[in-house]
Amino acid sequence: METSILNPKSIAIVGASIDAEKIASVILKNLLEGGYNGKIYPINPKYVEIQGRKAYPTIIDVPDNIDMVCIAIPYQFVEEVVDQCVEKNVKTVVIISAGFKEVGGEGEELENRITEKLKNAGIRLLGPNCLGYIDNRAKINLSFARENPGEGDIAFISQSGAFCTAILDMACEKGLGFSHIISLGNKADIHENELMEQLFSDTNVKALALYLEQFTDGKEFVSLSQRAKKPILLIAPGSSEKAKEAITSHTGSLASSYDTTIAAVKKGNIVLAENSEELFALINLIHINILPKGKSIAIVTNAGGPGIIATDMVEKEGLILADIGEKTQQKLLGILPKETSIKNPIDILGDAKSDRYEDTIKAILDENEIDSILVLLTPQLITEIEETAQKIVEISKTSPKPIYTCFLGGKDIKSGQRILELNRVPFFNDIEEAIHLISKLVKFEEGTNKRKIMDVKEYIKRPKYKKEILRITKDNDITIMPDRLAIKILEEFKIDTPKQAVVTGIEEGTDFAALNFPVAIKATAQDLQHKTDFKGLYLDIRTITEFEEKFNELKETLVKVTGNKSSEILIQEMIDSKLEFFIGANREGDSDIYEEKGLGFGHLIAIGLGGIYTEVYKDIKHMLVPEDNMSVEEAIDDTKVSMIINGYRGKPKLAKDRLVDLIIKIQRLLVSYPQIVSMDINPVMLTEDRAVVVDAKFYLKK
Amino acid sequence: METSILNPKSIAIVGASIDAEKIASVILKNLLEGGYNGKIYPINPKYVEIQGRKAYPTIIDVPDNIDMVCIAIPYQFVEEVVDQCVEKNVKTVVIISAGFKEVGGEGEELENRITEKLKNAGIRLLGPNCLGYIDNRAKINLSFARENPGEGDIAFISQSGAFCTAILDMACEKGLGFSHIISLGNKADIHENELMEQLFSDTNVKALALYLEQFTDGKEFVSLSQRAKKPILLIAPGSSEKAKEAITSHTGSLASSYDTTIAAVKKGNIVLAENSEELFALINLIHINILPKGKSIAIVTNAGGPGIIATDMVEKEGLILADIGEKTQQKLLGILPKETSIKNPIDILGDAKSDRYEDTIKAILDENEIDSILVLLTPQLITEIEETAQKIVEISKTSPKPIYTCFLGGKDIKSGQRILELNRVPFFNDIEEAIHLISKLVKFEEGTNKRKIMDVKEYIKRPKYKKEILRITKDNDITIMPDRLAIKILEEFKIDTPKQAVVTGIEEGTDFAALNFPVAIKATAQDLQHKTDFKGLYLDIRTITEFEEKFNELKETLVKVTGNKSSEILIQEMIDSKLEFFIGANREGDSDIYEEKGLGFGHLIAIGLGGIYTEVYKDIKHMLVPEDNMSVEEAIDDTKVSMIINGYRGKPKLAKDRLVDLIIKIQRLLVSYPQIVSMDINPVMLTEDRAVVVDAKFYLKK
Repeated sequence: METSILNPKSIAIVGASIDAEKIASVILKNLLEGGYNGKIYPINPKYVEIQGRKAYPTIIDVPDNIDMVCIAIPYQFVEEVVDQCVEKNVKTVVIISAGFKEVGGEGEELENRITEKLKNAGIRLLGPNCLGYIDNRAKINLSFARENPGEGDIAFISQSGAFCTAILDMACEKGLGFSHIISLGNKADIHENELMEQLFSDTNVKALALYLEQFTDGKEFVSLSQRAKKPILLIAPGSSEKAKEAITSHTGSLASSYDTTIAAVKKGNIVLAENSEELFALINLIHINILPKGKSIAIVTNAGGPGIIATDMVEKEGLILADIGEKTQQKLLGILPKETSIKNPIDILGDAKSDRYEDTIKAILDENEIDSILVLLTPQLITEIEETAQKIVEISKTSPKPIYTCFLGGKDIKSGQRILELNRVPFFNDIEEAIHLISKLVKFEEGTNKRKIMDVKEYIKRPKYKKEILRITKDNDITIMPDRLAIKILEEFKIDTPKQAVVTGIEEGTDFAALNFPVAIKATAQDLQHKTDFKGLYLDIRTITEFEEKFNELKETLVKVTGNKSSEILIQEMIDSKLEFFIGANREGDSDIYEEKGLGFGHLIAIGLGGIYTEVYKDIKHMLVPEDNMSVEEAIDDTKVSMIINGYRGKPKLAKDRLVDLIIKIQRLLVSYPQIVSMDINPVMLTEDRAVVVDAKFYLKK
Repeated sequence: METSILNPKSIAIVGASIDAEKIASVILKNLLEGGYNGKIYPINPKYVEIQGRKAYPTIIDVPDNIDMVCIAIPYQFVEEVVDQCVEKNVKTVVIISAGFKEVGGEGEELENRITEKLKNAGIRLLGPNCLGYIDNRAKINLSFARENPGEGDIAFISQSGAFCTAILDMACEKGLGFSHIISLGNKADIHENELMEQLFSDTNVKALALYLEQFTDGKEFVSLSQRAKKPILLIAPGSSEKAKEAITSHTGSLASSYDTTIAAVKKGNIVLAENSEELFALINLIHINILPKGKSIAIVTNAGGPGIIATDMVEKEGLILADIGEKTQQKLLGILPKETSIKNPIDILGDAKSDRYEDTIKAILDENEIDSILVLLTPQLITEIEETAQKIVEISKTSPKPIYTCFLGGKDIKSGQRILELNRVPFFNDIEEAIHLISKLVKFEEGTNKRKIMDVKEYIKRPKYKKEILRITKDNDITIMPDRLAIKILEEFKIDTPKQAVVTGIEEGTDFAALNFPVAIKATAQDLQHKTDFKGLYLDIRTITEFEEKFNELKETLVKVTGNKSSEILIQEMIDSKLEFFIGANREGDSDIYEEKGLGFGHLIAIGLGGIYTEVYKDIKHMLVPEDNMSVEEAIDDTKVSMIINGYRGKPKLAKDRLVDLIIKIQRLLVSYPQIVSMDINPVMLTEDRAVVVDAKFYLKK
């Protein structure tokens, strides 16, 4: 790695002993066996020599400078060694020991103290509570991994040491090497972003795989990913609510919400792997094969049943069964028996030998409509398994489009599998897995081509009501923005709202209502936050009589609920809505998030179906601010309810352009008022020509 | 098999020759090598001996009786042999040859002719277009399969020959045998239901696996499954729309809709496998292990990361992380290091050796809250892989609860995997797959315990308007039931409807409206079926003036659209609906479906969210009539919108009991008027105490 922090010329290992089972001893052994050619100093006051190397009582006793100190002793004794590191002025410390932040309480205090000491001394820290790291190019295996799968061109960074060991074991079995394997542990200092940046500029690294349970600085992570010229693969658990608890107890820190992760993955065009098997398969696919340029896939099969299953999966995974053009159909008619139906999936029948596979694949390769080909084979009586594999290998060598293979079966198909794998033709045993992963590749490739990087600074404008907002924003409590101020801020950003008035007296209310029937009467956001559930909303009021009745009813209710006799009440003209939409936001990070020192993802915007069904269908898509018009429109189109917005069954289209515009304005509003920790706009009323915010609640916190 | 149809004492093979590559020759070879001890007659006019057996020119020339004739010659020559079979009075014919119904046209005619001839002669037929069959107990391998995986206690029936070959190859690799493997082909005569019935009564068969693209008689299939005392595993492709096309061209018959399949699977408590890998895994799980009694699972892990992934999956798959009771917590406190957090997943830490695994598993086995245990292992430095596997094997031997294992990694964990698999402890490489399949087992076990069989006959009542319905029902065209009749039939079944009137003149309309404001004005079902899209619905009309205006507007529209000056118009009182629900139905089969000779599934009822979002969210669950109150209520609770029906965020509950009652009434209505080929009730207005049908359309066809 072209990095100073993990590129030591000398390493001391504190805790190595003649007991070969001790972790520090394993690390020393790994380092020696790995062929590291820097200086190595075992540190242990009890021995003069360990594993053939001269040992020193403490690092202070080492006569030379030390670049890196690896500490693998019980946590109680770590601080003393850290003090020595400061005295000795080493460059980097790797703390393997556990018992720190992940156990909470005193452990956390100890970690904070150590981190502070090292930081003040300008010494970098990897860990604590980590497995160490492996840099195969530099022949450094400073880890207590059971095995090293050897050199490769993929770097792997993991927040979980155990996950590292599982991946390593899997890699050993499959013969896949890595350039680097870095276990982050508690990330007290060195974290994923810094390492990513360095690995991106390392020409020996072709792709990056990460296992992360939390992001140290989400905003930067996304920004780095967007700028990366290399594929990034990520495993990020935490999709269930309960997982958050597990993460809490596991690393002593709160998990970023999974929705944020998904939005980050999309924005950064990261390939999300659901498990380590999938991570491996994806690494291979990205590595050995050209990527499909689009969604259209052709299926070639010697059996109908598997063709049907493939069709089901293509549908499910959002791919498209390619249309076979007239010219290609003619070609196929010349090749295939006349019982064959020339459509996709192309069933070349059970008696297909290798030449029929070959001819068919060649015939469709030129078809413009086809972006990739999946070849299915079942081992029927006269199926030529090896020959077919060999033919596919030959065609793949010069094919401009990816050819994927899926041989179904077990014993007989093994020989074909071996030929394909040896020649790096993507092979699967399972149709579902094949199409699931091809779909991920298609999305990745599409994302690569349309990546556009937005700068949040362009979205920030000088806010008019900064003073008012700061006055009511608290450090630890969440406060709600009063309706009057919320309405002003919506106006500031030229956001479409209904005609509305916040009133206290009935005369004022009647005057407004009379001009704007039909109207709605609503309690204000501040009154509604009282825990008591009460009727605070009256809709479609068409006459003065009705208005007076409902207004007084609400007044009475408010006196009961709040004790306040002069509560404010909101009167709005009714909007003839065709659809109730939802726009929400949560801030990840503090209100300084958009400043240089701010840590976190910033505001996560949630859009989708509003009204009473919002939580029922959770038809919500997420975006990290800022996104441009095109991405916002895409997010809208990703919701199911876009079916109605885009005009459905002859119904008129709704004002999607207005909605996009509204969301862009909301982004500006949020980054200009970063004190908004949370926001609910429910509903936005969509009509054929407007997107009207009829109910907006803003929550503030520093 | 205890069946006469596939239990021959003698077999003739038509088409066998000295060319070993011919399909009939392979069949003969398989039969001979399989050790069949009945008489075998190769049939071929060109040879006097084939594979050491005396050959005959035709079956007529065979001096003895023949039980079974297997035909594997080009389709053009099949009919002649069939005629000879009739002459010879054989018992069963197995036609391997292809070129029949699956190619359409003349092939279909030929198949029909042959089938008819055999039927008239009382001869049974397997195929055509099949792979043959294997009965391992009887040592009959009358198939051209490449390999026979040997004897076992699972029967496999497949509609796709190719799928058979893939499954056989997989079985050979995994060492799993079968009692029977039967390839159904075009199912011209022998089909799945008859075979299922026979296999259920075969004591050598423990479970049944099926690959089916279409059901010959769905109603009977469900009924057989409900009565089965053995697990049934099913692969049924066709979840995508395009798949239907593929099925059509594949077997020459229309696929049953996938929704019907899913409803049948649920009703019959069948285990649905998504692919052959999963089918295998499920066969093993059902076979070797006790099943979990409920949803609560405990996770034991030596690493936090995999624990989080397991938690995510438990959530996703509808299982529950078991609560660890106080007593068990105390036990665990005595076993585990104090850094451990005693909750589920139970993280026994990276330094856990086999004894800590053993102690932990034993400690939680007695916990009542736990139905099953999943043990996760990552190969960390001091992890004792083999010893841990061995300990789990020991505990499993006497455990009353299933213990599942998932060892993550590749090379190092192999030895542990071997120990577990040899001792038939369920082993997985992948957390997702493990929990996905455990969830299927839980559902199966739950289904076994609450299976209740309903008889459709109890639901049929003597219909009042049979004559009227029969008068307007056509053989090939779909007709729509007029609103007046539909309203009468709803009344016949005491279904809750709004006050309503079908009128032609405005006076009559005004009279009704005046008494029932607010009202809705609607065009009738018959007028709405005109293809032109027009405004046919006016809601919430509160005054006479408004009523007259809208009524006249609709009248004018109807004259324009239909040319009819005296169109009927429907006036209904408005119902203050809290939720718009949907109830639909489609009939699979003809209108004689509920009679003895009727073939098909009958009516599939669809229930879920109504209104404009019905097609957007497709929050629809399906049931095959008849289901009892409990199953109907379960189906309602399975919809997402049940969240609102069951009272949500302090909102009042809606009248679910009324809705259940309505659906039961609809079932009666449908089976009593089986001429209803399709039905849309959208919406049913749900309030706190009513479920009101405000819009019902019935479509009729013989």
